[in-house]
Amino acid sequence: MLLHLSTWPEVEAYLSHSTGIILPIGSTEQHGPTGLIGTDAVTAEAIARGVGDEVSAIVGPTINVGMALHHMAFPGTMSLRPSTMIQLVQDYVTSLAKAGFTKFFFINGHGGNIATLKAAFAETYAHLADLNLSNAHLVRCQVGNWFTCSSVYKLAKELYGDREGSHATPSEVAVTQYLYPSAIKQAPLSAEVGSGHAIYSATDFRRRYPDGRMGSDPSLATPEHGKQFYDLAVKELSGYYLEFLNSD
Amino acid sequence: MLLHLSTWPEVEAYLSHSTGIILPIGSTEQHGPTGLIGTDAVTAEAIARGVGDEVSAIVGPTINVGMALHHMAFPGTMSLRPSTMIQLVQDYVTSLAKAGFTKFFFINGHGGNIATLKAAFAETYAHLADLNLSNAHLVRCQVGNWFTCSSVYKLAKELYGDREGSHATPSEVAVTQYLYPSAIKQAPLSAEVGSGHAIYSATDFRRRYPDGRMGSDPSLATPEHGKQFYDLAVKELSGYYLEFLNSD
Amino acid sequence: MLLHLSTWPEVEAYLSHSTGIILPIGSTEQHGPTGLIGTDAVTAEAIARGVGDEVSAIVGPTINVGMALHHMAFPGTMSLRPSTMIQLVQDYVTSLAKAGFTKFFFINGHGGNIATLKAAFAETYAHLADLNLSNAHLVRCQVGNWFTCSSVYKLAKELYGDREGSHATPSEVAVTQYLYPSAIKQAPLSAEVGSGHAIYSATDFRRRYPDGRMGSDPSLATPEHGKQFYDLAVKELSGYYLEFLNSD
Amino acid sequence: MLLHLSTWPEVEAYLSHSTGIILPIGSTEQHGPTGLIGTDAVTAEAIARGVGDEVSAIVGPTINVGMALHHMAFPGTMSLRPSTMIQLVQDYVTSLAKAGFTKFFFINGHGGNIATLKAAFAETYAHLADLNLSNAHLVRCQVGNWFTCSSVYKLAKELYGDREGSHATPSEVAVTQYLYPSAIKQAPLSAEVGSGHAIYSATDFRRRYPDGRMGSDPSLATPEHGKQFYDLAVKELSGYYLEFLNSD
Amino acid sequence: MLLHLSTWPEVEAYLSHSTGIILPIGSTEQHGPTGLIGTDAVTAEAIARGVGDEVSAIVGPTINVGMALHHMAFPGTMSLRPSTMIQLVQDYVTSLAKAGFTKFFFINGHGGNIATLKAAFAETYAHLADLNLSNAHLVRCQVGNWFTCSSVYKLAKELYGDREGSHATPSEVAVTQYLYPSAIKQAPLSAEVGSGHAIYSATDFRRRYPDGRMGSDPSLATPEHGKQFYDLAVKELSGYYLEFLNSD
Amino acid sequence: MLLHLSTWPEVEAYLSHSTGIILPIGSTEQHGPTGLIGTDAVTAEAIARGVGDEVSAIVGPTINVGMALHHMAFPGTMSLRPSTMIQLVQDYVTSLAKAGFTKFFFINGHGGNIATLKAAFAETYAHLADLNLSNAHLVRCQVGNWFTCSSVYKLAKELYGDREGSHATPSEVAVTQYLYPSAIKQAPLSAEVGSGHAIYSATDFRRRYPDGRMGSDPSLATPEHGKQFYDLAVKELSGYYLEFLNSD
Repeated sequence: MLLHLSTWPEVEAYLSHSTGIILPIGSTEQHGPTGLIGTDAVTAEAIARGVGDEVSAIVGPTINVGMALHHMAFPGTMSLRPSTMIQLVQDYVTSLAKAGFTKFFFINGHGGNIATLKAAFAETYAHLADLNLSNAHLVRCQVGNWFTCSSVYKLAKELYGDREGSHATPSEVAVTQYLYPSAIKQAPLSAEVGSGHAIYSATDFRRRYPDGRMGSDPSLATPEHGKQFYDLAVKELSGYYLEFLNSD
Repeated sequence: MLLHLSTWPEVEAYLSHSTGIILPIGSTEQHGPTGLIGTDAVTAEAIARGVGDEVSAIVGPTINVGMALHHMAFPGTMSLRPSTMIQLVQDYVTSLAKAGFTKFFFINGHGGNIATLKAAFAETYAHLADLNLSNAHLVRCQVGNWFTCSSVYKLAKELYGDREGSHATPSEVAVTQYLYPSAIKQAPLSAEVGSGHAIYSATDFRRRYPDGRMGSDPSLATPEHGKQFYDLAVKELSGYYLEFLNSD
Repeated sequence: MLLHLSTWPEVEAYLSHSTGIILPIGSTEQHGPTGLIGTDAVTAEAIARGVGDEVSAIVGPTINVGMALHHMAFPGTMSLRPSTMIQLVQDYVTSLAKAGFTKFFFINGHGGNIATLKAAFAETYAHLADLNLSNAHLVRCQVGNWFTCSSVYKLAKELYGDREGSHATPSEVAVTQYLYPSAIKQAPLSAEVGSGHAIYSATDFRRRYPDGRMGSDPSLATPEHGKQFYDLAVKELSGYYLEFLNSD
Repeated sequence: MLLHLSTWPEVEAYLSHSTGIILPIGSTEQHGPTGLIGTDAVTAEAIARGVGDEVSAIVGPTINVGMALHHMAFPGTMSLRPSTMIQLVQDYVTSLAKAGFTKFFFINGHGGNIATLKAAFAETYAHLADLNLSNAHLVRCQVGNWFTCSSVYKLAKELYGDREGSHATPSEVAVTQYLYPSAIKQAPLSAEVGSGHAIYSATDFRRRYPDGRMGSDPSLATPEHGKQFYDLAVKELSGYYLEFLNSD
Repeated sequence: MLLHLSTWPEVEAYLSHSTGIILPIGSTEQHGPTGLIGTDAVTAEAIARGVGDEVSAIVGPTINVGMALHHMAFPGTMSLRPSTMIQLVQDYVTSLAKAGFTKFFFINGHGGNIATLKAAFAETYAHLADLNLSNAHLVRCQVGNWFTCSSVYKLAKELYGDREGSHATPSEVAVTQYLYPSAIKQAPLSAEVGSGHAIYSATDFRRRYPDGRMGSDPSLATPEHGKQFYDLAVKELSGYYLEFLNSD
Repeated sequence: MLLHLSTWPEVEAYLSHSTGIILPIGSTEQHGPTGLIGTDAVTAEAIARGVGDEVSAIVGPTINVGMALHHMAFPGTMSLRPSTMIQLVQDYVTSLAKAGFTKFFFINGHGGNIATLKAAFAETYAHLADLNLSNAHLVRCQVGNWFTCSSVYKLAKELYGDREGSHATPSEVAVTQYLYPSAIKQAPLSAEVGSGHAIYSATDFRRRYPDGRMGSDPSLATPEHGKQFYDLAVKELSGYYLEFLNSD
């Protein structure tokens, strides 16, 4: 059930039996010479919808632009500053909490979002308490990263070993190939690829990772792999969502 | 060309011949008993993509949640505060301006976004100048509201007369029916409908417009109408985009 | 009745029979070679006081500096950033709402303020609700632009036709001449004047409108015209105020 | 020379021989049973204009609402939060510094503004340096409080002794009586008056100072006294301004 | 009793008999060629602890970095912007007020903090009222500057006369020598020293005060003097604290 | 070398051979019935100073109050909101980067700080780039958590097994006992202790962890253990610092 394709009376009815909601969050950032700029957003959105179907939960609108400041030296990247993202997450959760939602499950496609999301959750809990909202103490936010699901991780290791890398990975590229087969890209990839450097400024990042990949070989990706990753992620995150929803 | 389905080298190539970009912006808010909560976002996104195809422009990620504070008394509504939205728009435009984009065409599906968007544009121009960005003085932002296109307006008047209203209108509902025929909703609509009241707080809004409609009769909408509106909006906004892009 | 020339017990007494207040808002910005930098502030202030007398309403302090970022390439211009102005309006309205005021009628002299004012109103309604203020849902803000009064517009068209233009207009200059006859300025005006360009950054604005005028011929202004405009604006806005005050 | 009654070419001409500007700042707050709510604003504005005439300096628009949070328990009081006021002062000074002004002399009518003004000056200097503005290092802001001029203080002591008090003082009331003789108020004043308490929250303030006066007997004020105070303040602040302007 | 060396049940027990707390606040800024960068923080912390012992009050964590923007042209200086410091102070006081503390005594080592602290107090009182906190109206904040204690001032005048100056003073250096005898520094001091200039930007400050001292001769300091100053400050501030705590 | 016990010429000299600095960051929050409220701050500070001695690096002032919103239901806890902490960290790093520092090593004593610190680093890199600071691209920030050092973790497991827990742990309590033997606390500890619950709001946290401990048995701590942990942490973090400093 997509919030965007529902009416307000349908949401009201939904709230009478569940106060959980899934919010997809991605990023709009370079993913190497062949990875899609929207990789993190389109994978998070598709997987979130898969989970929503599986567990009969409402799925809210996708946060398409996340925290990608370190990718800013590559054209096409867009980023919120963390302080903006905190305000945005607070506005999202506050809007929905006022209507009665209490369990917010963020299905996330981008590692760079995690720290700011956690900061935003803490700021939001305190904000809701300050508003004297009656259900403030019940509000809970959780991040479910599809790419760190253990089943996903295991398969990526099996298929790609060390060539999975940590950005513009074959696993995430595979999911986009599965979702958008007409957008599969070809480009020469250097054999050598930056790897293992800590992340600092955008300028430094590009110096370390000149084509945007971090230790990955996305040429290994196939749409068939993508379907496998998608299925595993949906299954594992569905379990997490239900556990979260049913936690007291 | 969708930014999300492009790679960074493709964006780099695009920038060598155009510095224009289309950004869809909608809202996540109640649209009466039968209108979709995502109406403004899904219509803006679809029309923006249609324009992008028509004029070979890149289309960025959709801003799904806009300024809908006055709809907050209906469940399912989400809103940014205007001050958050200003920061968000500034972050979006600044990210892209740093890469070389200068013409930002926001295709908008929600009247309530307009004021804050304009405030955000002013704040952003000043911000870019303060950054001493070399292309700061070239950056231009413009809003194209699909629902105020003269061709759209004319057809709505022809088809619905006064029953078009100003929120949860048959014209916007029709476009969603065309885009998502499986999400056409049925619900009883009272004959009487609030109309003509100024917009103040969320509580006041619901008092004036108890089922969320503003003077509209969305039961008049059909998917076929929706296609007509879609086609007209794409055509008219394509013209506006090209004029904007080519303005010196 | 001016708030500035009242005592707090007088305000307390006023509140026992009315909760309306008029707040003048202008701008401090270039108005072409002969227009006063304070045009928008002094006209808004004078007209607001005229309305206040007419309808026995209290008139608050003038917001002298508004949103004029696009005029910043001309010396003497001052501007708030929109995000500052939102905070300012919120502080103003919140201060007065806590004392019991609920109807805020902003008499405005500057088109560039409108978008940010509307954004500020939305932010403020939500803020007041978040404060759990008992009268939050009753608070209403409205903008009354003296220069868009239909009677004013009609007279300007009659007197000046197309030479009214849209900034540093003869009508607004006329009102300042009526109010400050000793500050009537003379300067050569080029026959050609920029017109019809959209407004973007301050640098772009000055390129388009090199002497600051937008399509106007302020040399047509006379103090006698000014008195006519003043009288019309006071009369028309007095009607609007009473309607607003008496709306349920 | 009033900025509001000048044109931009006049400001440009002024800047060729002086980069100093006077900015009046007051407050909109209760001043006891007989003092005007606008006392601090109207006195600062009038004295600033007097100084401007005396020293041929340009006088900018009055900041009518200042930092008066502690007076908020009395109706009619309006206040900026300090964080808003910092942004406002930064916007004012930045606007004018970009045009070439470097010496900002704030003529102040309200003790409660001083701390926040000083904080704002520090924030602004750093902001201007961060903008890489060429004249950033030359920008200087100074507060001149008319009510702490030594000549004013001396006369107040002579005329009123201890009954001068520290808020709603006969000296400030006298200046308003001189400026607005038609707004001289009469109301019974209790013999006892709160005095000597530190200032904390608005609620606490009203408990300590139930009618708003702080140790003062404003019934001693006369318009003739007001003229004396006005003349002394203008003279003394004119000297300070010139010294400030000419400091290297 | 140090908050940092207490447990939460001990704090709970303390709150049953006192709601007062001492918060040391200093700065991290240049103090001339021989003064310690932490002078204001280490003296405030030590004196606060001395007072805490004397009056059996709890002493909270030291705010080590304050408002020192004007010292920023000297390496080693750190500063909060005033707007950051306001948020920080608000967060500190709000945290503790929610637990029941109401009397906040800031023992301050840096003149440059005073204005921003006062602004922060005002902002905080209003914030607490907006939270509808039950004890909001009881919260009181006060600054006790050890260096302006009359006994300290008197001794400094006796020992150093005009060579006390106003920054990097022998009195404050003496206290650091008493506290950290192993960190007594030697460096040549020019006979001439800047003095009497107003404080504007960091660049201007360094031009006026090239070695960082303001009219002072810190070579006069001795650890023995330091002990005297310390003892006087502890005694005098202990009296102030008790008076503050016992005020109704 | 402590920044607080250095002079500005000493810092200038230091910068000629190193641009690294260590910044301790802790928290002020409940640590169960026997743990010190300052545990995270005092351990981070002591270990940071140990590392500073070991590697001859300058150690800046301790950030005593961090992100502890989830502990706010226990008296004595203080917290910054994440958005405040981001501004604070940005101000700290910006101050020092302007003077030439580029390698910022935060020695951290509190898990709850990590997410917000990382968000702050990202925001700061972008801010420095926006300032056009010449060394912006060289600035690097890194967190070194003493409690996650592998040697520390290994010893804790050996000494305490599962009774180490994750908050108010015997290992951190042991370090405080070593540092402040006179502040060793005794209090009855329930045999049962909350464990394994995710962290949401402060109210929820206290419900899950009624005495503040998270799965830990701090009664196992001894000062001797504390010395061992301290030594291991200093050694391991010294290695990390040097590696960080020497990274190109």
